[in-house]
Amino acid sequence: MNPCIRAVVRTASHYGVEVAGISEGYEGLIRGDMRELTPRSVGGILQRGGTILQTARSDYFRTDKGQREAIRQMNEKEIEGLIVIGGDGSLHGAHALANKNVKVIGVPASIDNDIWGTNMSIGVDTALNTILVAIDNLRDTASSHNRAFLVEVMGRGCGYLAAMAGIIGGAEMILLPEVDTSVEEAAGVIEAAYTRGKNHSIIVIAEGAEIGAQDLKMKLDEMDVGFRTRVTILGHIQRGGRPTAFDRLLATRLGVKAVESLAEGISGEMVGLRGSKIELVPLEKVVSKNRTVNLEYYEMARMLAF
Amino acid sequence: MNPCIRAVVRTASHYGVEVAGISEGYEGLIRGDMRELTPRSVGGILQRGGTILQTARSDYFRTDKGQREAIRQMNEKEIEGLIVIGGDGSLHGAHALANKNVKVIGVPASIDNDIWGTNMSIGVDTALNTILVAIDNLRDTASSHNRAFLVEVMGRGCGYLAAMAGIIGGAEMILLPEVDTSVEEAAGVIEAAYTRGKNHSIIVIAEGAEIGAQDLKMKLDEMDVGFRTRVTILGHIQRGGRPTAFDRLLATRLGVKAVESLAEGISGEMVGLRGSKIELVPLEKVVSKNRTVNLEYYEMARMLAF
Amino acid sequence: MNPCIRAVVRTASHYGVEVAGISEGYEGLIRGDMRELTPRSVGGILQRGGTILQTARSDYFRTDKGQREAIRQMNEKEIEGLIVIGGDGSLHGAHALANKNVKVIGVPASIDNDIWGTNMSIGVDTALNTILVAIDNLRDTASSHNRAFLVEVMGRGCGYLAAMAGIIGGAEMILLPEVDTSVEEAAGVIEAAYTRGKNHSIIVIAEGAEIGAQDLKMKLDEMDVGFRTRVTILGHIQRGGRPTAFDRLLATRLGVKAVESLAEGISGEMVGLRGSKIELVPLEKVVSKNRTVNLEYYEMARMLAF
Amino acid sequence: MNPCIRAVVRTASHYGVEVAGISEGYEGLIRGDMRELTPRSVGGILQRGGTILQTARSDYFRTDKGQREAIRQMNEKEIEGLIVIGGDGSLHGAHALANKNVKVIGVPASIDNDIWGTNMSIGVDTALNTILVAIDNLRDTASSHNRAFLVEVMGRGCGYLAAMAGIIGGAEMILLPEVDTSVEEAAGVIEAAYTRGKNHSIIVIAEGAEIGAQDLKMKLDEMDVGFRTRVTILGHIQRGGRPTAFDRLLATRLGVKAVESLAEGISGEMVGLRGSKIELVPLEKVVSKNRTVNLEYYEMARMLAF
Repeated sequence: MNPCIRAVVRTASHYGVEVAGISEGYEGLIRGDMRELTPRSVGGILQRGGTILQTARSDYFRTDKGQREAIRQMNEKEIEGLIVIGGDGSLHGAHALANKNVKVIGVPASIDNDIWGTNMSIGVDTALNTILVAIDNLRDTASSHNRAFLVEVMGRGCGYLAAMAGIIGGAEMILLPEVDTSVEEAAGVIEAAYTRGKNHSIIVIAEGAEIGAQDLKMKLDEMDVGFRTRVTILGHIQRGGRPTAFDRLLATRLGVKAVESLAEGISGEMVGLRGSKIELVPLEKVVSKNRTVNLEYYEMARMLAF
Repeated sequence: MNPCIRAVVRTASHYGVEVAGISEGYEGLIRGDMRELTPRSVGGILQRGGTILQTARSDYFRTDKGQREAIRQMNEKEIEGLIVIGGDGSLHGAHALANKNVKVIGVPASIDNDIWGTNMSIGVDTALNTILVAIDNLRDTASSHNRAFLVEVMGRGCGYLAAMAGIIGGAEMILLPEVDTSVEEAAGVIEAAYTRGKNHSIIVIAEGAEIGAQDLKMKLDEMDVGFRTRVTILGHIQRGGRPTAFDRLLATRLGVKAVESLAEGISGEMVGLRGSKIELVPLEKVVSKNRTVNLEYYEMARMLAF
Repeated sequence: MNPCIRAVVRTASHYGVEVAGISEGYEGLIRGDMRELTPRSVGGILQRGGTILQTARSDYFRTDKGQREAIRQMNEKEIEGLIVIGGDGSLHGAHALANKNVKVIGVPASIDNDIWGTNMSIGVDTALNTILVAIDNLRDTASSHNRAFLVEVMGRGCGYLAAMAGIIGGAEMILLPEVDTSVEEAAGVIEAAYTRGKNHSIIVIAEGAEIGAQDLKMKLDEMDVGFRTRVTILGHIQRGGRPTAFDRLLATRLGVKAVESLAEGISGEMVGLRGSKIELVPLEKVVSKNRTVNLEYYEMARMLAF
Repeated sequence: MNPCIRAVVRTASHYGVEVAGISEGYEGLIRGDMRELTPRSVGGILQRGGTILQTARSDYFRTDKGQREAIRQMNEKEIEGLIVIGGDGSLHGAHALANKNVKVIGVPASIDNDIWGTNMSIGVDTALNTILVAIDNLRDTASSHNRAFLVEVMGRGCGYLAAMAGIIGGAEMILLPEVDTSVEEAAGVIEAAYTRGKNHSIIVIAEGAEIGAQDLKMKLDEMDVGFRTRVTILGHIQRGGRPTAFDRLLATRLGVKAVESLAEGISGEMVGLRGSKIELVPLEKVVSKNRTVNLEYYEMARMLAF
């Protein structure tokens, strides 16, 4: 998110608008925990993973009372508009504030790529490249060791990362929250690869798939599919790391557009990548829809697996 | 290009079509230097930079006689259709063959991103990430050493890489083929950064800019702009490296679409990324237009520099 | 191992000795599955993880009969000496052959760094850098999310990787096979970090530690240590990846020395890194001793944790 | 250097000693520009390139008067001992202070690895890995493009980086400050590689070699050696980047030993890596000797080139 914060601050400065950074999201907003961000104070943050503003969940903010406190703080501190960078929960909050006449623009950031209204959210490309390095490493030794590798990646409700990692990492099989796959089916695909003479097999499993990596391993080992199985659970290493070029550019463009929209008096919208353009989408729509992975990609992965 | 070759071969196999890989481009086509590519033979190439098929320039192919030889070889070897992956020169050749009734589909690959008709060409994202790591490294020590760094990147006619690297690398200034910038202007910007108290300055220079990195260094040193200057010329390291997630996905989608188009009897077109979709663009148009960088990005970089 | 194979082949060529590469280790030796390796055929393998010669375990080779077959194949193929690159099992095999008058030199390769007689084995430095990137990624977001991360790394009998990763990754705590640590003790350290105001905590756990990452997570969650816990299991991604500079240099020096030793008629020894020199150590000693991690490093990690 | 700073601060804290960080080296010492460093304030710096303390050269400090001012500041601020992390110039300064009865310990940090008394200086391994990635990238496309690549790396007086990069990057030829090589000789080697049928050639050139990369290119192009030539000048990107595992461990061990030595009342020594141990070496010796690359490595590179 840092490249986005930098873009917001410097664009605002360009338009003569002052910016305060709020620590720990809505939690910090309620506490009034904010500090001025100047073009200088966002120097040198482009390459850092994570965010210079801490993040936190706030249950209190979900209540009317919490939101009232947040709005009171904004008035007290003379905050005229809010840019909310985050995932589904954050955007729901933004939508709630907009409904209470706060000027607010949302920016989608979620490595699951589960936000409706934008092709890509901030963080997805970086996460995908991290996964890719991991899978490439597995392939290096896979061919030496005659093994099936089960790789668990993020994605509770949306299998975007798993599907893409499967295509470009050359997986034998992908398990998604969006597609029911039985253990028998998985075992069949892996055993077929073994029989076909492949010297390794990679299975990418989304966190939200019906069966987890550890469970699948146990069942495959019982069934004996030819390969010995090994598990990798990437976990939160997918959330960090040096932001990629794509992520930095996306974050920058979204940040610039968010400030410009707010400056034009627009509110209640999210900035999103549509085709190759940054456009506005009503938060109303964003929060009322679920985004799942395009199953064409799932089919493509199957076609390319060998 | 390897992920594209893999996608072509495996998609073709899916549709029951045989594929031969031609070594060294048109040069190899004229010589009939080709070998069967099977789904197995393109295993394990996803993560490799460069191409498993060598590349070469062919002056002979630019002549009618050369093209006649190429077509003769295709007939002899019973090649029914051709997929050409490459930059401007390769696509001109593809267009010429299409005009002689060869079934051909072009796939854009050029790290300069100078091909009209596609938002992104294969190789651009990988090159941009390589540049980014280099600039991040410079920034690590830039803040320790009070220096101005002149970084020369690829881009003879199109400053896309330089402009993007400038935005997301946090450059003070960008020199492009598309924009005239005098040495005095450059010196002014760098000196202003020094006066403003910055502890470093990064200037990204496209290969095709009016003034090269070495020349600029000499002139800046004569003028004394406050910072000591240092030059980095990345050169061909931008062409190699593990393909990024974006590049692998783009290459895969373009390869799939190229095969499907050829299978449907389509010819004389290039597959390109338009918005978020892969679409066809007539080679006629592709070869008759030049693509330069969108100057909005140049302005964005100036706004964000500090 | 590829840089070592390259060094062996080219050094041998320099001395006018022919080299055959044996696929799948002793298994391949028994089958006589070998092919000539020339200086040219080991070009372009320096940067590849894994090995161009497949690896495999061979139970048959552990028997006298298996070893007799292997020696028969060597005589048949006129192999005068053997260089064995591998871990504990491979070196035991090498020792057994040496006892049967086969000329053999061992080269230590094991990412666990559990081989006695060498400061470092091939693969350790690359694995350690892979772990480090993972931990750095965790730290990026750790500071945003108030979490404790449990990271499981390789090391069944020797906690070298875990200890080193703990020191240079800034872990709160390290669990090793060599040191008994109770769940209560671990919980105490993590809770103390939470109370002290740290916004994250990293615990590195060797595969061979008494308690595994998943188990520890479950117990910590029951006990409530302040932080929410998350698990990363790196698994076999530690075995692959582009070999680092250190590993390539070590592998090269060991390979050169192995060939030179064999050429001088030396046998039954392992080449190892002692101080900054490559020296010979009797295989007899290597296979009869176990190497564990120097506990000074464990103490150092504790001192530096904060 | 950041891992070293962290180790110094946390070790000192362990022994109950307070630490002040001095900005911009001796320049800052003279100005009394220092701030307290606590275990907490060095959290999260392990993975950052460069140094959190700025660096600067100080001509004034080389004079007796400058040194007198520095010592006066130390007395005023009640600094009882000094740890100097740096290269040749910094260690000369440390030696001068030691001669004036200041308690001082030196820590070698110089990417050229030109400091006598230590096998490796801080920064060398990170620089070498950066160079390696660059050369690997060149090799990816080298095999596609029939080119000779001239790569200029750091090393004014000591060709360590060039020699090592040459061995482990698979260079055809290495030009060092320590070895006279004529243009004709270089041209001969490259032409021979072309004639032998190689599809690329890599030449690594130390900054301090008699002939620079740009000059060599011009001369080779005039002579026509078969390959087309391309230049890469890495420049200061070698100084930055995430510190590698080796560098972090070395920096940590040196930092710990420096504090412990100072605490034991030792002064006028440098901590260095000797074999696999951290030992003390008199600064007197360190500053009176020059370290050059071990020419055995140069010979090894020649033997392995093909």
